Amino acid sequence: MTRSAATPARRDETGSDGNSEYGRKGFQRSRSHFADRITADGRDGWPVEAGRYRLVVSRACPWASRALVSRRLLGLEDALSLAVADPIQDDRSWRFTLDPGDRDPVLGIHHLSEAYDARQSGYPGGVSVPAVVDVPSGQLVTNDYQRLTLDLATEWTALHRPGAPDLYPEPLRDEIDEVIDGVYRQLNNGVYRAGFATTQQDYEDAYRDVFHRMDLMSARLADRRYLVGETITEADIRAFTTLVRFDAVYHGHFKCNRNKLTEDPVLWAYARDLYQTPGFGDTVDFDHIKRHYYLVHTGINPTGILPAGPDLSGWLTPHGREDLGGRPFGDGTAPGPVPAAERIAAAGQP
Amino acid sequence: MTRSAATPARRDETGSDGNSEYGRKGFQRSRSHFADRITADGRDGWPVEAGRYRLVVSRACPWASRALVSRRLLGLEDALSLAVADPIQDDRSWRFTLDPGDRDPVLGIHHLSEAYDARQSGYPGGVSVPAVVDVPSGQLVTNDYQRLTLDLATEWTALHRPGAPDLYPEPLRDEIDEVIDGVYRQLNNGVYRAGFATTQQDYEDAYRDVFHRMDLMSARLADRRYLVGETITEADIRAFTTLVRFDAVYHGHFKCNRNKLTEDPVLWAYARDLYQTPGFGDTVDFDHIKRHYYLVHTGINPTGILPAGPDLSGWLTPHGREDLGGRPFGDGTAPGPVPAAERIAAAGQP
Repeated sequence: MTRSAATPARRDETGSDGNSEYGRKGFQRSRSHFADRITADGRDGWPVEAGRYRLVVSRACPWASRALVSRRLLGLEDALSLAVADPIQDDRSWRFTLDPGDRDPVLGIHHLSEAYDARQSGYPGGVSVPAVVDVPSGQLVTNDYQRLTLDLATEWTALHRPGAPDLYPEPLRDEIDEVIDGVYRQLNNGVYRAGFATTQQDYEDAYRDVFHRMDLMSARLADRRYLVGETITEADIRAFTTLVRFDAVYHGHFKCNRNKLTEDPVLWAYARDLYQTPGFGDTVDFDHIKRHYYLVHTGINPTGILPAGPDLSGWLTPHGREDLGGRPFGDGTAPGPVPAAERIAAAGQP
Repeated sequence: MTRSAATPARRDETGSDGNSEYGRKGFQRSRSHFADRITADGRDGWPVEAGRYRLVVSRACPWASRALVSRRLLGLEDALSLAVADPIQDDRSWRFTLDPGDRDPVLGIHHLSEAYDARQSGYPGGVSVPAVVDVPSGQLVTNDYQRLTLDLATEWTALHRPGAPDLYPEPLRDEIDEVIDGVYRQLNNGVYRAGFATTQQDYEDAYRDVFHRMDLMSARLADRRYLVGETITEADIRAFTTLVRFDAVYHGHFKCNRNKLTEDPVLWAYARDLYQTPGFGDTVDFDHIKRHYYLVHTGINPTGILPAGPDLSGWLTPHGREDLGGRPFGDGTAPGPVPAAERIAAAGQP
């Protein structure tokens, strides 16, 4: 849910979260406005169908990156095509300036806001990623970042690759839901509440939440390889997209600086384990991540100077987590190589 | 040389360095304007004399903190009295709002600028610490931060405590001068060049210098306890006042973020060794340091949010550097306890 306002000159200077509000309760993340679901039975009018939809992401955005990981793990690359926005929004928000002619080659649009407008003309809210667009009509279907990955795991099963893991196993759903709820409030969104705080008290509350949750996760992961069960699940995906950004942006830019991820031996090994698992690290673009946060959030980093650090070479060092057991893909298998068109120059070489 | 402009409404928004300039060469640190020396023979009109002069510092400022360390190591507390400014300047620069009536009890002034004005009326430059003021006349004598500690070590010898170490030993001066020159350019001032850079290129040049110098120091200190010789010298003092601020402010606020000091085992142990040596850590006030940098530099941290981190508890952990030999005070002894009036609430408990 990395957002910015759709209309010219309305871009929120806090950057990625144009749909957020600052009120008495501090930074507030809004709910997604478009919450239609793409389902096997098509009950919302949007049936799962190979080739019909396009996933629009920014590789900078942790919420969008969940979908990148799920799509890779489930082998949905051919069924659900991918548009990658420029990490730097302009005053009309996310744009396709990385593509020839500054236009997404499939949707034929310059800005993601055009798909929002096609769905609801004059939509006044923020434009966010991840977004799924119906290719034939050019309309936005959903920007519901909390629901999207669950539906990829449970509704898109007919299109999963052979050997795709079950990322949201029925018997573990209650436990997964409980874990991801705490991770969302205190970590995924906690870093944003810290970074965009406008009062010292709001910041300190968020900071405390972030490290409280990281400490809980660290204790939980000391003797188990994954957050829930013995395989990779939705819970790990949601933890990963925040942890992989922690030292690169949240530690300094968002002032979550009690310690770096690299200073927590358990969490750092857990994050490296995931990073080195096919489908995780191969979706990560540290260049997009750093440029987005540091260059877009002029309210926090007015100089626009992009930090040269941190040294990211540690992401590829051995993590030793195999000793804890666990079977990453359960009865399934690892995904194959990243499609050539989606390879990130620096992937595997952070 | 932590400065800000003396006249109302002239306070430099870059904060501590009002006397700096941004030009084609990037951030430029100015030379001290008042360079009279207080000497044993009094050749500049300012003879060394017990009780005559007052040292004005901010405990936030690394340049001023050099003098705090030297004064403690040499036992000059009684001979050279101390005024500590509020870490947050106002539009007239350094002020004595920590004292009753917001006035320095010895000089009777509210702002350090008054001593500058007493020396040269209408002085248009920046007001900086460290500053030494002649108590009888209320005039500033010197703000020459590069010279001050050398003179405390070599000109004030008649007033040194019994057992005071030789911080600038004659046979090692060439080597010390060479070391402190590189440390000044690439580290002491390098972190400022990084933090106040207005172009990406200036920042990256400074960042490279900072870590190049830290790498050189780390290699040098791997098998020797101190930078020059076998005892603490001026070189260690100058390295210390930057290193002790590194993780608390330079890493995040000034974007010197390749790695934290704590991630370099040699430099981190070296810094801890000094911190735990009487005369070093007992001069450090992390609260003053963090509040000064994060609250004064509104051009870098416009939200005014003060980071709650980093966790500083590691400063008191064992460093193991005794195994490298060396005699901290040479033929001398450690300084006694900090005078009660100068004790820092958090000292020894970072």
